[in-house]
Amino acid sequence: MEPSDPYLIVSADSHAGLPTQDYRAYLASKFHPQFDDFLNERSAAVEAMTKLGVRNEDYAKKWFEEHEDALRSGWDADRRDVELDGDGVAAEVVFPDADAVESRTCVPFGAGLGLSGDIDPELGLAGAQAHNRWLAELCSHSPERRKGVALVPITAPLDEVLAEIRRIKAEGLGAVMIPAMWVNQTPYHDRRYDPVWALCEELELPIVTHSGPAARSEYGDHLGIYVTEVTWWPARPMWFMLWSGVFERYPRLKFGVTEAGCWWLPALIWFWDRLYLGQKGTEKLGTDPFRGAVSMPPSDYIDRNCFIGASNTKRRELGMRYEIGVDNILWGNDFPHPEGTWPNTRSWLTKTFHDIPIDETRRMVGLAAAEVYGFDLAKLQPHADRIGPTPMEFGQVTDDDPTGSRLVHKWAATKAVGRHWLTDNDFALIDI
Amino acid sequence: MEPSDPYLIVSADSHAGLPTQDYRAYLASKFHPQFDDFLNERSAAVEAMTKLGVRNEDYAKKWFEEHEDALRSGWDADRRDVELDGDGVAAEVVFPDADAVESRTCVPFGAGLGLSGDIDPELGLAGAQAHNRWLAELCSHSPERRKGVALVPITAPLDEVLAEIRRIKAEGLGAVMIPAMWVNQTPYHDRRYDPVWALCEELELPIVTHSGPAARSEYGDHLGIYVTEVTWWPARPMWFMLWSGVFERYPRLKFGVTEAGCWWLPALIWFWDRLYLGQKGTEKLGTDPFRGAVSMPPSDYIDRNCFIGASNTKRRELGMRYEIGVDNILWGNDFPHPEGTWPNTRSWLTKTFHDIPIDETRRMVGLAAAEVYGFDLAKLQPHADRIGPTPMEFGQVTDDDPTGSRLVHKWAATKAVGRHWLTDNDFALIDI
Repeated sequence: MEPSDPYLIVSADSHAGLPTQDYRAYLASKFHPQFDDFLNERSAAVEAMTKLGVRNEDYAKKWFEEHEDALRSGWDADRRDVELDGDGVAAEVVFPDADAVESRTCVPFGAGLGLSGDIDPELGLAGAQAHNRWLAELCSHSPERRKGVALVPITAPLDEVLAEIRRIKAEGLGAVMIPAMWVNQTPYHDRRYDPVWALCEELELPIVTHSGPAARSEYGDHLGIYVTEVTWWPARPMWFMLWSGVFERYPRLKFGVTEAGCWWLPALIWFWDRLYLGQKGTEKLGTDPFRGAVSMPPSDYIDRNCFIGASNTKRRELGMRYEIGVDNILWGNDFPHPEGTWPNTRSWLTKTFHDIPIDETRRMVGLAAAEVYGFDLAKLQPHADRIGPTPMEFGQVTDDDPTGSRLVHKWAATKAVGRHWLTDNDFALIDI
Repeated sequence: MEPSDPYLIVSADSHAGLPTQDYRAYLASKFHPQFDDFLNERSAAVEAMTKLGVRNEDYAKKWFEEHEDALRSGWDADRRDVELDGDGVAAEVVFPDADAVESRTCVPFGAGLGLSGDIDPELGLAGAQAHNRWLAELCSHSPERRKGVALVPITAPLDEVLAEIRRIKAEGLGAVMIPAMWVNQTPYHDRRYDPVWALCEELELPIVTHSGPAARSEYGDHLGIYVTEVTWWPARPMWFMLWSGVFERYPRLKFGVTEAGCWWLPALIWFWDRLYLGQKGTEKLGTDPFRGAVSMPPSDYIDRNCFIGASNTKRRELGMRYEIGVDNILWGNDFPHPEGTWPNTRSWLTKTFHDIPIDETRRMVGLAAAEVYGFDLAKLQPHADRIGPTPMEFGQVTDDDPTGSRLVHKWAATKAVGRHWLTDNDFALIDI
């Protein structure tokens, strides 16, 4: 690959969903009466969002007026491709809930981004299936550009869960979103879920969570508490799976946390490796306090089994990429949510990646996601050639430095220190 | 102060407690029957610890044999002073539960480190009072060297809570430990607790949590999950109080998180300041999504109202001290717990602080804690002069550099960048 080649960009976090009422056609008819009730309750839900401060009336009005046409891309595949092209994005990993402002495209019965362990098993599966069926249709348009994320309430009866996973694989969907919170159901360290992990490993379906669920009933109307914790709950399954040996037993299983940032991860990896590598504080715990569940430092499982759908990556996070693992950071535009970079992805990427080495940028903005989710690079290349921004557009190459080598040099020392606790350094080094 | 002056060391985290059965004398007699039941149930509790992997039989045997005599310092003030002297520690902030290996000195009815919001209000207060009474006695020996932390289950009826806070203040205790987890009780953002915050502010009693409580019933027997989350739960009240305006309404109130490290804090402060200072992601939320609860960047509340009882500080944490705030880091030896630095505090401090500027070391190992907890420096100075290690002992001054100025120079650039998001830098700088 040449430094002048355009980037093949994959958004590891985008959203699509039908206008809520239109899900009726995808819902088994026996659930239509409950669906009517659900539609009637939606206005109460919007009111609750306003109370918590995550919805602002004036802003919502403006958002829908200004983007009326573009927002059809939430469910219209052709229009969607136009918006992806405009953003320079060759491919996308498609989560539910296109509308993050007023939830006008929410999955029936709360089975969307808010998917929760305590959802009614029957209704939850029915709502999830309605979305999964429609999403498979959406992804059949320009299929090389899309991997749809199926919704699977894994706390439901196991045989139905496994059947749904097989079904969505057969329909061409590319990942399985599980409830971030099990709430009153069995936590994810439990062997109950082994058949789920085994099947996802076998079918090469990454398992993902997405930010949204949180312990809202505890937060009153305090937005700051919600925003703080909404990044923690979707990350939580990572350490339940890691420390209970899920990644040890299913070495090819992939697990990713989406749109919760990756700023919290370096400290945790350090903390976990220290714990595993046996610090003084654990001497009182005997010879194998982990009971065979882990046989490698946690950072090795992170690199082998985990990834972060980091969405709109922040400069601070990129500064820590050698601790997180460059290959573990999957950028995304969060299209078409207002907190994402769409429709200004090109300028956001320039602002964020201008001094990051080109090879690393290629991984984070596309190739790592393509690998995790199994996109066909050969089929994406024509799109990248057509719409992808170039390292020159990001300011990474210049006339004086046509290969971007100054950026490699700039970060070389930071990279060499990497995860400092594994390279005999006391601190990460950032001096660029 | 001269570079050659010994350090005045204050441990912001130590532990004391009576052998459990001896609490009977401090417990109102009407609770004696329940106390007998409690004693009988303790063996089951030890078994549960073994199951989770936080207790190892062989290690426990060795620990008690090797330290039989020294461990009397858990409740014997004279012996305690000998151990403090040996560690070079002039003063201590005394939390409950001297025995972290087998809980042989646990507070009646679970009101110790595991103090939880769902504790029976009557028994919880009775158990807490028993410990508080005894602790006041302990702290009356060498009172200039001790600030006792009272146990106050603030989820109990409010009038009794306020009465207990007044009582412990009158008895000379120096701080109030609240349940880290409210569990099924009212979360700490609620105005219900305003009288508690107001009284603690008025009486200049810092409010603290301490690691221990966690959602154990969710963890199975997986130690790694427990250790990961046991640092999160005691920190959680910080953001509940901050974002709900507790620190705005009670500007002199102090809140501290103890023995949960401080490695998780830099990222949170960055994240919170970004949220407050208004990033793109919050544009959809209207003009003041925080509803007047906060009027300053969260980092300002951290500096004014919060502190971290960081116990055995790690090198990585010290590398981030300009983001955390040097004055917010209160070292502690966790005496007499095996995961702490006792009885080797001098060598641990040398290993950890050898290249930290002397003035900053003085703050972190003692002066910051003295200020937060209100120790009388004049009365502590003779102890420091007698037992305190010197900057020379830590390797901070040498014949070539009798003032330690090379250390100041070494960290100057990192300090100048500080909280990079407030100094117009993209990244923290660590290049020493």
